[in-house]
Amino acid sequence: MDRDKILLTPGPLTTTLRTKLAMLKDWGSWDADFNAVTASVRASLLKIIHGSDSHVVVPLQGSGTFSVEAAVATLVPRDGHVLVLDNGAYCKRAARLTSLMGRRCTVLGFDEAEQISAAVLQENLKADASITHVVMIHCETGAGVLNPLQAVADVCEAHDKGLIVDAMSSFGALEIDARKTRFDALIAASGKCLEGVPGMGFVFIRKAVLDGCLGQSQSLAMDLHDQYVYMEKTGQWRFTPPTHVVVALHEAIAQFEAEGGQSARLARYTQNYQALISGMAKLGFKPFLDPTIQAPIIVTFLAPEHPAYDFKAFYAAVRARGFLLYPGKLTQIETFRVGCIGAIGPQDMAQAVHAVALALKDLGL
Amino acid sequence: MDRDKILLTPGPLTTTLRTKLAMLKDWGSWDADFNAVTASVRASLLKIIHGSDSHVVVPLQGSGTFSVEAAVATLVPRDGHVLVLDNGAYCKRAARLTSLMGRRCTVLGFDEAEQISAAVLQENLKADASITHVVMIHCETGAGVLNPLQAVADVCEAHDKGLIVDAMSSFGALEIDARKTRFDALIAASGKCLEGVPGMGFVFIRKAVLDGCLGQSQSLAMDLHDQYVYMEKTGQWRFTPPTHVVVALHEAIAQFEAEGGQSARLARYTQNYQALISGMAKLGFKPFLDPTIQAPIIVTFLAPEHPAYDFKAFYAAVRARGFLLYPGKLTQIETFRVGCIGAIGPQDMAQAVHAVALALKDLGL
Repeated sequence: MDRDKILLTPGPLTTTLRTKLAMLKDWGSWDADFNAVTASVRASLLKIIHGSDSHVVVPLQGSGTFSVEAAVATLVPRDGHVLVLDNGAYCKRAARLTSLMGRRCTVLGFDEAEQISAAVLQENLKADASITHVVMIHCETGAGVLNPLQAVADVCEAHDKGLIVDAMSSFGALEIDARKTRFDALIAASGKCLEGVPGMGFVFIRKAVLDGCLGQSQSLAMDLHDQYVYMEKTGQWRFTPPTHVVVALHEAIAQFEAEGGQSARLARYTQNYQALISGMAKLGFKPFLDPTIQAPIIVTFLAPEHPAYDFKAFYAAVRARGFLLYPGKLTQIETFRVGCIGAIGPQDMAQAVHAVALALKDLGL
Repeated sequence: MDRDKILLTPGPLTTTLRTKLAMLKDWGSWDADFNAVTASVRASLLKIIHGSDSHVVVPLQGSGTFSVEAAVATLVPRDGHVLVLDNGAYCKRAARLTSLMGRRCTVLGFDEAEQISAAVLQENLKADASITHVVMIHCETGAGVLNPLQAVADVCEAHDKGLIVDAMSSFGALEIDARKTRFDALIAASGKCLEGVPGMGFVFIRKAVLDGCLGQSQSLAMDLHDQYVYMEKTGQWRFTPPTHVVVALHEAIAQFEAEGGQSARLARYTQNYQALISGMAKLGFKPFLDPTIQAPIIVTFLAPEHPAYDFKAFYAAVRARGFLLYPGKLTQIETFRVGCIGAIGPQDMAQAVHAVALALKDLGL
């Protein structure tokens, strides 16, 4: 039985066959045909955030983290001061890469079971005028918390601070509207809610701050300003693009648009989430988060309180039935995670819950 | 007519259907099956340079340039001093990224129509004891020059300097033997002579210098030491890997081994090169380089000295017949380039030359 497994992970995720079939061709990275694909992807991405007037979008090779690092390096001056709003593992990673590259970084910690607070941010901005930029994660995939983007953006705008948003696992599924929400940079990647394959990220940069980014990055490969200027001039990427990944994203975006765009995708993921939560509840599983702050992207479940429980064995038993779960990322409590995103529907989720039920039986739980 | 064009470019290049078909599946980046693919790729890469005893290999997301930057950032201490042996565009890029990240960098310039000189390097190392590392490009793809790796490595070893080799377009085709040639780091990528698709690079690091690399990189995403340690501990990549690209490389390596490895690949590329050179000579085209320093990887041809010649029109006329050429990268002279690498044989090269002949007719040249 070599049937493809369904990935209940927050990217890489299950993509459609149509998306993968787009990779069955080789493209010249200098050729006009490929430049047209890049241009089309960029235009579509801007449309998703209603950002054609206010923002540009710069694609970048590598995983999403490369794009987060590139955004900080490109947007924040060398003598800038970054405040990271931290309620999880990906926030800590953003803080680490900011400090490593030599930018001053302050971490404002919140509980990983709670949202970050715009009010607390406001106090901190009042108390320390040296802060130039705020970094937040829209959907903290560590636990799955949906953070209050609009409220944080409003505080940043009121205090005239730059806002850098890691929207890796929310972009395409949750509403982000550049006409209502002011951010200097917003980052996502190909292999998340757009349901492409992994291998590239992209960063929306507010036009008003773009020129000021010239020469700020100490990395050549990650200099988004340089990438932008070259791409505008030539239509090409500066360095070899992951051509097959780009073309797969182009195909995935066509399906995203045909499905009805962001609102349709959110509706499907919400159905997935509800099928998952209700099914798992019947099996006795409790989600870690309060449902009011839970994004319908990835759900953290408390592990069964049973001496026989072992994540690896549980994972293997569910895997044998065709579904891949994701380990927990919380430091204090034993958990596991289930992604609701990818080219799957609520019927797949129902099957996944059924697989979990059979796995519990296997393990005598 | 939508038949796939043949890419006569130095990567991305034409890959086999078998390699592309490997991308028709989604993989969990945390799953043991995928970890096994990563482990297999790494073991195969080390075998190609006979480096299992002396080196480790660290794969990295992004284009080859990301891996070059990562190698410099990881290998060179912050107070190190890099000497770049410069005979072309890719050397200049290596110097630029080294300076940008804040490492002291000296450029030793050579003519782009000539090899770099180990003797001149030796003089420079004697004259400036502060140099800690030497950077060279094995095959300078700007013009196509094969640089003297062994001679440079010998000088570096004699003076106990670290050597970082960009072997992007030579690795897999030209012989590189870690038992004979000492280098601290050697860099290549998936979408070159191994005939995978673009999207990841990899860096061989000499075990003797590996521990000293801890904490040297100012970039989190490009820290090869951190990537190595995590990969050894978990079998996984630190950040989302380009799963489809990795699996395509795995499949490409299987075909590389079945073909007979590096020597067989070199033999085929040499046949391609000879078919190209002899065919183009009959059409009156002269190669830019002296054949004794020409690698059978990419050939720079002088553009026809005819007032009606225009690269874009020439490119389009050849393209209409199914072949993609590559623009020249020399600053002083009008040239174009033709790659000899990829999943193509001498019969394809003969057809390419024929397409060039018809294109010349079209353009009245």
